Amino acid sequence: MALIFHERVGLDGRRISPFSWRIRYAFAHKRLDPVVVPTRFADVARIRALSGQQFVPIIEDDGRVVHDSWSIACHLEDRYPDRPTLFGGAAGRGAARLVNIWSDTVLGPAMRPQIYADFIRCIDPGDRAYFRSSREAQLGMTLERYSADREAKLPHFLETCAPLERTLSEQPFLAGDAPAYVDYIVFSVFQFARIGSPRDALRDPSQMAATRAWRARMVALFDNLGDRFAGYPMEDT
Amino acid sequence: MALIFHERVGLDGRRISPFSWRIRYAFAHKRLDPVVVPTRFADVARIRALSGQQFVPIIEDDGRVVHDSWSIACHLEDRYPDRPTLFGGAAGRGAARLVNIWSDTVLGPAMRPQIYADFIRCIDPGDRAYFRSSREAQLGMTLERYSADREAKLPHFLETCAPLERTLSEQPFLAGDAPAYVDYIVFSVFQFARIGSPRDALRDPSQMAATRAWRARMVALFDNLGDRFAGYPMEDT
Repeated sequence: MALIFHERVGLDGRRISPFSWRIRYAFAHKRLDPVVVPTRFADVARIRALSGQQFVPIIEDDGRVVHDSWSIACHLEDRYPDRPTLFGGAAGRGAARLVNIWSDTVLGPAMRPQIYADFIRCIDPGDRAYFRSSREAQLGMTLERYSADREAKLPHFLETCAPLERTLSEQPFLAGDAPAYVDYIVFSVFQFARIGSPRDALRDPSQMAATRAWRARMVALFDNLGDRFAGYPMEDT
Repeated sequence: MALIFHERVGLDGRRISPFSWRIRYAFAHKRLDPVVVPTRFADVARIRALSGQQFVPIIEDDGRVVHDSWSIACHLEDRYPDRPTLFGGAAGRGAARLVNIWSDTVLGPAMRPQIYADFIRCIDPGDRAYFRSSREAQLGMTLERYSADREAKLPHFLETCAPLERTLSEQPFLAGDAPAYVDYIVFSVFQFARIGSPRDALRDPSQMAATRAWRARMVALFDNLGDRFAGYPMEDT
């Protein structure tokens, strides 16, 4: 049966979700070529009927429905053990789980104010009201207000990235000499930012050189996968 | 030739260094039984003559001198590949390097104010003047002043631990189902705190339950290795 990837999309098919990006890279790493079902926020009824919850990515593999990006990565690793490994074994998987949680609860929140006010324009116009109201309820303020002091918040973001920078100044990928799922996890946050804002949070040439170079290597993987879809919309839509 | 472990010691042979602790656990994991050379701060001339630098741990393996805990762990992994693996492969080693850097530059500094004012009493009386002056120069203040507002700094420490807590609520060890070097890295910071202060930074029973339970499992490993040496000195020395 088919392998199906329900992937979050935004304006004109842009790939706007860090969680979907890490799974897109995981599929490429495993050399799997799923049928992609572009999924808008407006498709929530379909997603709920499929999976019993509202979040994307979701995969269907031989009729089995798996949601949550970590669970999907584990599923792909266990179901396709003869293909290139995402974790490199049990200890690698364990440590990747810690990196995943750090990325989602520390790195991602530090990144978001850098891009949220811009990011709304990457979203399908039909989804913008939902995105704005749901995020503003979480944040307790408007997206614009959340990003208004982003210059003041930039040092905190860069400080959060410091362990990445130091690691990547010693080795080409977070997984060592070759990329693996830990790289896809962390890169997905930077990719989210690349697509979500015209302002590069790593723009200061005097710092984060190793992370910038790693990001470029990550974009270039799998036939330039990181640039396969449209970037930030420079014209108003 | 002999395998020799130059290990930092404090008052009455207490093991006071997180960097030495992670190597002690690495030796136990590899089922290697080195000759231990207890090393005080006052032994700096010997350490410099041996390794060309002043920091401990250092190992000598068949005449080869290796310093820096990460380099030592990598050396043990590469030189004893048939013994239980510390990293579980290349991707696990890569991710462990990130956890190591995070632990040393984020977790450790968040922990230190919780214990530094107490910790001086764990140090050999002959080393205390050196320890105090070197640390106070780094901190720009006395140890007592650095720890004076530790209650106010405790939420920051606990927030720093949040990704550990969440990971350990899902899996028994940071490396997954069984402990590996990522566990020894992170545990060494908690072990440093256990020995360095009578006040447990994880004392609030309403939070950090998974991390506390993991810490107890880590202490119990290898025949209760974490309790093999004396703890905090309750009588003044």
